[in-house]
Amino acid sequence: MAPGEEIGGILCGYHSVEEALVRGTRHLGTLYLARNRQTARTRRLEKLARARGMKVKQVDSRTLDRLAAARNHQGIVATVEAKAALDLEDFLGSLGEKEPAVIVVLDGVQDPHNLGAVIRNCALTRTRAVILPRDRTVGITPAVEKVAAGGLEHVDVVRVGNLAAALRSLKAAGFWTVGADARGEIELPAADLDGRLALIIGDEHRGLRRLTKEHCDQLVRIPTTGAIGSYNMGVAAGLFLFFAFLRHRSPE
Amino acid sequence: MAPGEEIGGILCGYHSVEEALVRGTRHLGTLYLARNRQTARTRRLEKLARARGMKVKQVDSRTLDRLAAARNHQGIVATVEAKAALDLEDFLGSLGEKEPAVIVVLDGVQDPHNLGAVIRNCALTRTRAVILPRDRTVGITPAVEKVAAGGLEHVDVVRVGNLAAALRSLKAAGFWTVGADARGEIELPAADLDGRLALIIGDEHRGLRRLTKEHCDQLVRIPTTGAIGSYNMGVAAGLFLFFAFLRHRSPE
Repeated sequence: MAPGEEIGGILCGYHSVEEALVRGTRHLGTLYLARNRQTARTRRLEKLARARGMKVKQVDSRTLDRLAAARNHQGIVATVEAKAALDLEDFLGSLGEKEPAVIVVLDGVQDPHNLGAVIRNCALTRTRAVILPRDRTVGITPAVEKVAAGGLEHVDVVRVGNLAAALRSLKAAGFWTVGADARGEIELPAADLDGRLALIIGDEHRGLRRLTKEHCDQLVRIPTTGAIGSYNMGVAAGLFLFFAFLRHRSPE
Repeated sequence: MAPGEEIGGILCGYHSVEEALVRGTRHLGTLYLARNRQTARTRRLEKLARARGMKVKQVDSRTLDRLAAARNHQGIVATVEAKAALDLEDFLGSLGEKEPAVIVVLDGVQDPHNLGAVIRNCALTRTRAVILPRDRTVGITPAVEKVAAGGLEHVDVVRVGNLAAALRSLKAAGFWTVGADARGEIELPAADLDGRLALIIGDEHRGLRRLTKEHCDQLVRIPTTGAIGSYNMGVAAGLFLFFAFLRHRSPE
């Protein structure tokens, strides 16, 4: 998927659809609801959708299953304008001059559940963007949107062809680059997370690649018992972003 | 599933199988490997398995898919003695007198991915047990074992019939009960997490039930931007258990 290319387009489940309706940053298409499964929640969505000028259709569950591509949809599916991926230059241009900002860079991610979890974490911690390499990386599929639970409405998605070049551009733009690495010298609670921060997380299987590590200003580890290998990607990102959020919320 | 009943029994994927082989706390059955997918990793597992007296079979991928019940198995499946669930009394009896300990109590959990993620977090933070109500709760399925990534070898699973009664027993045994709740008065970094700690987390959809909240000594929230609803259960548990781990690792 190239920057500017359309991503997403189908929202599944109550939280994702509600978030898109309330935020209103994307053009909306049609809201599909399961026939005979009306609840206070679906009535609320239907009212919101009509107020936003969406079409609302009652359909059978097989139609919903097909639209949702076998995802868990809770009887609720909406078609929306797909979210466009940005390129890095446009994203950096959208930031105010020297404005503090946190972003997350994934050095590859294959599991839609992990990418969705990272985006959900971003929305909860005012993380501005998730940077994804164009290869070795899942797209923003309906499964990702579902797990992100509406988070995609709050986070820019940036696609880059060459991760090393992107990290150089980020540093030139004043970002401090922190890599999450099990052999990092610094433990997470003591990491430098102020100012413009790019947090770099490795893929689920290999962690950070050597070349990526070389572009990190600091390698930071999450202390553990060592009983098993490492944290799940979504949890690891959640821990780092939470500490960054605490720091950025009350700057010293 | 009643306490003492067998749970689990099929491990899928490299990490889960390796962990069971290395830890050796469960009797092992047969290791199934995908024909024609030998790598340094599978050879390592095969060697470990033979040293432990396991049978090793090369099978086709359809056999593996069937054994794994459609889980992602990476060409590696093992049958093991199922892990037995404990009852609460037996678990409490296994703790030393007044020994500090962290446990996690789930007020219901339906998604195997979430339960697996919680168990993985427990193993990384020396959390001793996960307490699960008998109803409204997924079992320790192969999907849970897979996501737990070997964590189940390090964590007791305790099943209880009545969660309120279990919380009373925990308090009588000296546990401080902290509930994770979006409307909690205390923010996570300031929570009391010392000594014997039972962390209580609500189910994915409703959070903590009213009756459960009434049994909590403290309700604690994870501060967020408020942009979207809340953290995923696995990430929320990960944040709480990490702060507890930091506290317990270096007692003041």
